Amino acid sequence: MGIIVQKFGGSSVANAEKIFNVAGRIQDAYDAGNSVVVVVSAQGDTTDDLIEKAAEINAKPSKREMDVLLSTGEQITIALLAMALEKNKYPVVSLTGWQTPIKTNMVYGAARIEKVETTRLTNELDKGRIVIVAGFQGVNAVNDITTLGRGGSDTTAVALAAALHADVCEIYTDVDGVYTCDPRIVPDARKLKDISYDEMLELASLGANVLHNRSVEMAKKYHVDLEVKSSFQKIAGTKVKEASSVEKLLIRGVARDNDVARIAVIGVDDTPGKAYRMFALLAKKNINVDVILQSIGRENTKDISFTVSRSQMEEAIKILTENLEMLGATKITHDEKISKVSIVGSGMLSNPGVAAKMFEALYDANINIRMISTSEIKVSVLIDEDMAEKAVQAIHNKFFKD
Amino acid sequence: MGIIVQKFGGSSVANAEKIFNVAGRIQDAYDAGNSVVVVVSAQGDTTDDLIEKAAEINAKPSKREMDVLLSTGEQITIALLAMALEKNKYPVVSLTGWQTPIKTNMVYGAARIEKVETTRLTNELDKGRIVIVAGFQGVNAVNDITTLGRGGSDTTAVALAAALHADVCEIYTDVDGVYTCDPRIVPDARKLKDISYDEMLELASLGANVLHNRSVEMAKKYHVDLEVKSSFQKIAGTKVKEASSVEKLLIRGVARDNDVARIAVIGVDDTPGKAYRMFALLAKKNINVDVILQSIGRENTKDISFTVSRSQMEEAIKILTENLEMLGATKITHDEKISKVSIVGSGMLSNPGVAAKMFEALYDANINIRMISTSEIKVSVLIDEDMAEKAVQAIHNKFFKD
Repeated sequence: MGIIVQKFGGSSVANAEKIFNVAGRIQDAYDAGNSVVVVVSAQGDTTDDLIEKAAEINAKPSKREMDVLLSTGEQITIALLAMALEKNKYPVVSLTGWQTPIKTNMVYGAARIEKVETTRLTNELDKGRIVIVAGFQGVNAVNDITTLGRGGSDTTAVALAAALHADVCEIYTDVDGVYTCDPRIVPDARKLKDISYDEMLELASLGANVLHNRSVEMAKKYHVDLEVKSSFQKIAGTKVKEASSVEKLLIRGVARDNDVARIAVIGVDDTPGKAYRMFALLAKKNINVDVILQSIGRENTKDISFTVSRSQMEEAIKILTENLEMLGATKITHDEKISKVSIVGSGMLSNPGVAAKMFEALYDANINIRMISTSEIKVSVLIDEDMAEKAVQAIHNKFFKD
Repeated sequence: MGIIVQKFGGSSVANAEKIFNVAGRIQDAYDAGNSVVVVVSAQGDTTDDLIEKAAEINAKPSKREMDVLLSTGEQITIALLAMALEKNKYPVVSLTGWQTPIKTNMVYGAARIEKVETTRLTNELDKGRIVIVAGFQGVNAVNDITTLGRGGSDTTAVALAAALHADVCEIYTDVDGVYTCDPRIVPDARKLKDISYDEMLELASLGANVLHNRSVEMAKKYHVDLEVKSSFQKIAGTKVKEASSVEKLLIRGVARDNDVARIAVIGVDDTPGKAYRMFALLAKKNINVDVILQSIGRENTKDISFTVSRSQMEEAIKILTENLEMLGATKITHDEKISKVSIVGSGMLSNPGVAAKMFEALYDANINIRMISTSEIKVSVLIDEDMAEKAVQAIHNKFFKD
């Protein structure tokens, strides 16, 4: 009836049995009369094994050769999945990134898709074939293999769906959808029927870990309807689509991110340009700064606090310490034992009491807020790490129980 | 100072240590001022592992998808070898079959190279880079991956050498050259300084197992100088070249082939067309017939004997038995316990006594000859399998000891 793009991750194709399970999902869509394009990742630990092989030879190989190496992982999967469909007597053809072709820019290891050419894809679909495309990889202007970086197969799937004007892009994963909260923390977390692109983007960046941000951004830009579904259970998943068409909810979910470290620069000269210089130093080292708070310090100084991921904390402190004098600051403190807890929902745009309701839940649970950050559809608080689970439960109860 | 093509087989690149050994051989050639193009096979057991992975899913996968799968083996090697050269600070770039590109015909699994385009190769060489090319693989007219079948990497190397007008094509293997005889049978076998293409072709088809026939045929056609060398020892190997330029020797080597079974069709009607029909039946089933002998039987009949490889014996007997009546034959006998022992050498063209000398050696050793077959530069005899080693030793002594 239409064109469906399905994407299966590495754990869904980890062995022969799982590959036949995936083949079954594909066949269902094909038997229903759809044109089916499938995107797959490398099997299970294949990518890690290849990285290890490279590390034995060269600790710092060029990204170009790393891409040549890693792209074999998905190439193995497309061939095996095609063989499974052949075994089940379905017409099928596999395509690598360069065969499709998925054209990217020149950045090895983290390439961006520039164009998906659809001539071969539509030719193969017109012949009635299921098309299996290698995720995560493309080809650049000099005919070199490139890879798309983390979450790249999701991006491949959305790019194909956009180029083919597919009716839906189904992302099959270990979980069966997007939840209002991590079910390991809040057992009665609700599965969402749908969610808007912007909400999904906030949740993904907050650690919901279901879809890669770049794929959601691309889906939003090209109006691709996404659906997150389970590879193993045949039940409805969560639809990701335009804000106007999603169910109205005050908030969509509660997320926790433990990969947070707080750095405070104390006693910064209260003269213009100090904050700018400080963050320019960090940006030059590719250190991502998240929540920023500036407070008035003693005697014409100010204190500037901000968060970074824990892996970047040491480097950030080193750079700032080297430039302490230039910044006119007196000392630097840090704290690794904190978490970020956030609520996300476009409903809060028209409901000014949402943040207050969140703070009330934390107050009732006797949890101290260290920093607050808000955007149009998100409120984040920094709290002590050992309070994070309790905080998530309290907030989830406040909004979803009654 | 010229262009050198080097080919390393799977056992020469089986692990990180061996890859660095290979890198050393490449660097020597590069440091001597040569433009170096390297062809590599898949590491160690990689190809077998991939075949097993496929077999778990589909006992009879399409050859197209098998080629997509198997070609990843060489792609992994080119990336790893390039990383080793990067580690040693040499400029290097890897190229897959489709990137080179090596254009083949449409036969998946056993493609023939039609053309090697040299634009990218010469561009990379002009930049001073070592170029590492994946052996065994190419790309066909519809942009699909093809593989070249057994011994394909040798063929890739010769094709690149021909296209680039290379000064020499060096084939690195486990052995350090071509010997007058298998050193496991005759410990004082001599390593040959050189050998002609035709002699090498006869030896390869007789089981010398050093170079694949198709690569030697191609080298002969395009006048590519080959050299068979050791991957591990830095010593001179054996040169394969035009007959006019090789050292004059009465015979070049003694070879033994145990993969031989003899079938005899007894009492065939002595009317025209019977032999033709018989071999047409076998050819239709792709059964390769080697030595053929026809003798006069009793009462207007003839007996036809021939040899096939042992793996094809059962099928050959089955076909002939089904057609016994049509052939007007009375019965079929077979014998698996035989070997073929051959001498090869263009010297015998001008020395009529060579075959007699061979027969004399066998007579002296009390070995009975079952069948004889000759070509311009080869004499083969079929003897009992348990006499084969003794026969090889006796013949080798006769020609090489004095």
